[in-house]
Amino acid sequence: AIDIDRLMGRLEALGQIGALPGGGVKRLALSPEDREGRALVIGWMRALGLEITRDVIGNCWAVRSGSGDGKPVVIGSHIDTVATGGLYDGSLGVLAGLEVIEALNAAGAETERPVAVAFFTNEEGARFAPDMMGSGVAQGALALDEMLAVEGIDGVTVAEALAATGAAGAAPVGALAPHCYLELHIEQGPVLETEGCEIGVVTGVQGISWREFRITGASAHAGTTPMALRRDAGAVAARIAVEAQEIAARNGPPQVATVGRMRFAPDLVNVVPEEAVMTVDLRHTDEAVLQAAEERLWSAAQDFAARAGCEVSRRTLARFAPVAFDPALVDAVEAAAVAGGFSHRRMPSGAGHDAQMFAPNCPSAMIFVPSQDGISHNIREYTAPEEIAKGAQLLMDVACAQAGL
Amino acid sequence: AIDIDRLMGRLEALGQIGALPGGGVKRLALSPEDREGRALVIGWMRALGLEITRDVIGNCWAVRSGSGDGKPVVIGSHIDTVATGGLYDGSLGVLAGLEVIEALNAAGAETERPVAVAFFTNEEGARFAPDMMGSGVAQGALALDEMLAVEGIDGVTVAEALAATGAAGAAPVGALAPHCYLELHIEQGPVLETEGCEIGVVTGVQGISWREFRITGASAHAGTTPMALRRDAGAVAARIAVEAQEIAARNGPPQVATVGRMRFAPDLVNVVPEEAVMTVDLRHTDEAVLQAAEERLWSAAQDFAARAGCEVSRRTLARFAPVAFDPALVDAVEAAAVAGGFSHRRMPSGAGHDAQMFAPNCPSAMIFVPSQDGISHNIREYTAPEEIAKGAQLLMDVACAQAGL
Ligand SMILES: NC(=O)NCCC(=O)O
Ligand SMILES: NC(=O)NCCC(=O)O
Repeated sequence: AIDIDRLMGRLEALGQIGALPGGGVKRLALSPEDREGRALVIGWMRALGLEITRDVIGNCWAVRSGSGDGKPVVIGSHIDTVATGGLYDGSLGVLAGLEVIEALNAAGAETERPVAVAFFTNEEGARFAPDMMGSGVAQGALALDEMLAVEGIDGVTVAEALAATGAAGAAPVGALAPHCYLELHIEQGPVLETEGCEIGVVTGVQGISWREFRITGASAHAGTTPMALRRDAGAVAARIAVEAQEIAARNGPPQVATVGRMRFAPDLVNVVPEEAVMTVDLRHTDEAVLQAAEERLWSAAQDFAARAGCEVSRRTLARFAPVAFDPALVDAVEAAAVAGGFSHRRMPSGAGHDAQMFAPNCPSAMIFVPSQDGISHNIREYTAPEEIAKGAQLLMDVACAQAGL
Repeated sequence: AIDIDRLMGRLEALGQIGALPGGGVKRLALSPEDREGRALVIGWMRALGLEITRDVIGNCWAVRSGSGDGKPVVIGSHIDTVATGGLYDGSLGVLAGLEVIEALNAAGAETERPVAVAFFTNEEGARFAPDMMGSGVAQGALALDEMLAVEGIDGVTVAEALAATGAAGAAPVGALAPHCYLELHIEQGPVLETEGCEIGVVTGVQGISWREFRITGASAHAGTTPMALRRDAGAVAARIAVEAQEIAARNGPPQVATVGRMRFAPDLVNVVPEEAVMTVDLRHTDEAVLQAAEERLWSAAQDFAARAGCEVSRRTLARFAPVAFDPALVDAVEAAAVAGGFSHRRMPSGAGHDAQMFAPNCPSAMIFVPSQDGISHNIREYTAPEEIAKGAQLLMDVACAQAGL
C-alpha cells in the first residue's frame, strides 16, 4: 500500500525548491530551480535502486527490472511548474510513481514487466512553447532540432538552458518505448469536486491551439494624432483579445479562450503602440470546432488590423489535436476504481499532459484526483492528502496489474 | 537673423546622443544619454557667455543680461525624448533659443530685459509621470517632494536618477520668474501641413488625463478553467482598452484616447492573467468633455471588472486642465507672423508643453512649425530646415520685441 505521509513529505520537499514568498512554486523548465528539483528526485530514484537514463532533451526515467525482458510499464509526469504554480501539478504523478516502487520494494515483489518512473522536460510550456516538449520529442511528435532552437520567454533557447542546467543525458530520442503509459494528475478543474467524485477516469485530452499574434502599426504622439490617422497596434490587440472571449461565449463550454501574454512597444503612456504581441490559447474537445474557432479569430484579427491600418501575423506556438486514450486501458482504470471502492466518473482532460504524447504509440491512460475550487496554475492549488492517497493507490493497482504482479 | 545651418548642425549633434540604429533618438529623462545631452547644451550656453543656473529638479537656464534689471524673457523647452523620438521635439525650442542669443551677440545688441534660454527636466513623461515635471515644479503646479519620489518605468525614482546624472543644481524651486515665456515647437500633428500653413499661433493646450488602471483577478489554468469560473484580469483590460477607443469615436475630434502601456501578470501563455496594468491617455480641449470621458471610462471599467469577478483601481499619473495662453502675447505672435510674411493659423496644441506650466504665472505663448505627415514620438519625425528657419526667425522677432530691443 501507499505511504501517504512519505508521499506528502516528498511533495512538500520538492515544493520547497522555487517556493514563492506568498506560497506556491515557481520552477520553470530548465531553470536553476528545475535543476535543483531534478537533483532531488534523481536522488530519490537512486536511493530506490532504480536504473536511471536521461535523454538528449533532459527527460529522465528510472527502471525497476521485471522478471521478464518486456517493455516497461511507464508511470510518468513532469516536475516543472508555471510561474504561479502549486505543489501538485506534475510532481504528484512522478512522486506517486516513486511510491509504487517503494511499495514493490517493501513487499519484495517481482513484476513480470519492468516498472519505470519518468519525468519529462518542459511539460508546462510556460517558459518554452510548445508544452509537452520532452514527451513530444521522446515520442516523435515534435522534432528535436526544432525544439532545441526554441527561444524561451527570457530569450534563452532550450539548447542553452539544457547546457546551463546539465539536464540532458546521452540516450537518444525514442529510447523510452513503454509497454503502456500511466499518469496520475490533479484534475486542475472543478468537475470532480463539484460532483463529489474521488477519481476521474480520463478518456482523453482536448485539442490545444497556442498562437502568437503580432500586430504592427506606427508609433505616434498620443496628444496630437487624430484617431482617424492612427495605426494603433495596441488597440487592434485589445479587439482580438475581446473577440477571443466572444468566440468562447458563442461556442459555449467546453470552448475556452485565454489571452495569457500581451506586450506593447514602445510601451509608453503617451505613444501610440507601434507593435503588440499577444498569445491566444484556444481549446476544445472537438477538432472541427477548434479549427473553426481558430479561423474565426484569425479572420477577425485580419479585419481589425485592416480597419486600423495595421498588419497582423500569427505563429503557431503549440497545436495538438484532441487525443483519445486507449479504450481497454481506460476500462482497466475504471475497473480498478470500482474494485477499490472509489467514486469516479469518466471525463476528458482540459489540460495538456505528457500522456497525450504517448497515446499514439502505446496504450495510455490517466487518473485524476480533485482540485480544491478547481484551481491550478495558481499558488492556491490544493488537493487533500486523503484524496491524493486514493489516486496513488489506484495508480499502484493499475500499474501492478499491467506489469503482471 | 537666424543661422539655419548652425541650428540644424546643433539639432543633428544633439540627435547623435541616444541615436537609434534605425534613425531617431532615445534620450529618456535623466538617463545617461540625457546627461550627455545636457552637457553638450550647457557647453554651448557657456560658449555664448551666458550665466547658467540649475535648480533642484535639474531645470537649467542660461541668462543674457539686459540693460535693465527686470525679469527675463524666457525661451524654453526640453531636451529629453520618448523611447522612439525624433530630433525636433523639444530640442528645437531650446536650440532655437540659442540662435536668438547668437544673433543678439553677433549684432552686439543690448536688450532692456534679460533674455534666457531654458530646458526643463522630464517634459515627455515617458520615463517618469507626470510629464512637464520640471517646469511644473518650477512654477509651483507640482510638489517637489512628490515628484522626487516618483518611480520611473524602470523602478528608479526621480531623486535617484537626479543623483545618478548629477543634473540637479542648488537653485530653489521658483528661482526662475520670467517676464514672459516663449516656446517654439514642432506641431507634432498634421494640421499645419494639411492646410499649407508655415506657422501655428498656439492659443492654448488641451487638457491631459493620464490614468493607470490596475485590474486584479485570479490566475487559473487556461485549459481546465471554464469561462464562467474565471476572473480574467487581462480580458477586463482588453475591454477597457476597446472602450477607450469607443469613447473617442463617440465624442469625435478633438477627443483622443491612447492605451500606451499594457502589462499582464504572470504573462504566460497558459495561465489566465491574475493582474493587468494599463495606462489610458485621454485629451480634449474642453474640460467638461474630458471629465465626462474620464468618468464614462471609469464606470465602464468598474462594470467590466464586476462582471468578470475582478477588482479595478485607478491612479492619476498626470492631470492638466486645458490652458489658454495670454491673449496679448498670442496677438503679438500673430502680428509678428503677419509682419514676417508667414502664412499662419491659430490653433490649440494637442501635446502638453512646458509653456502650459508657465501660463498661470506669466504671459506665455507658443509658435508651431509643421511636422511632416503629422508624425511625432516616432523616429520618422521630420521638419524641413526652411520651415524651422521661419519658426526660429519668428521666435527671435517676438523675443526681441518682448525684451525691448
Ligand atoms: N497539466 C498542465 O498543466 N499542462 C500544461 C499544459 C497546458 O497548458 O495544458
Ligand atoms: N510635446 C510633447 O510631446 N510633450 C510630451 C507630453 C505629451 O504627451 O503631450
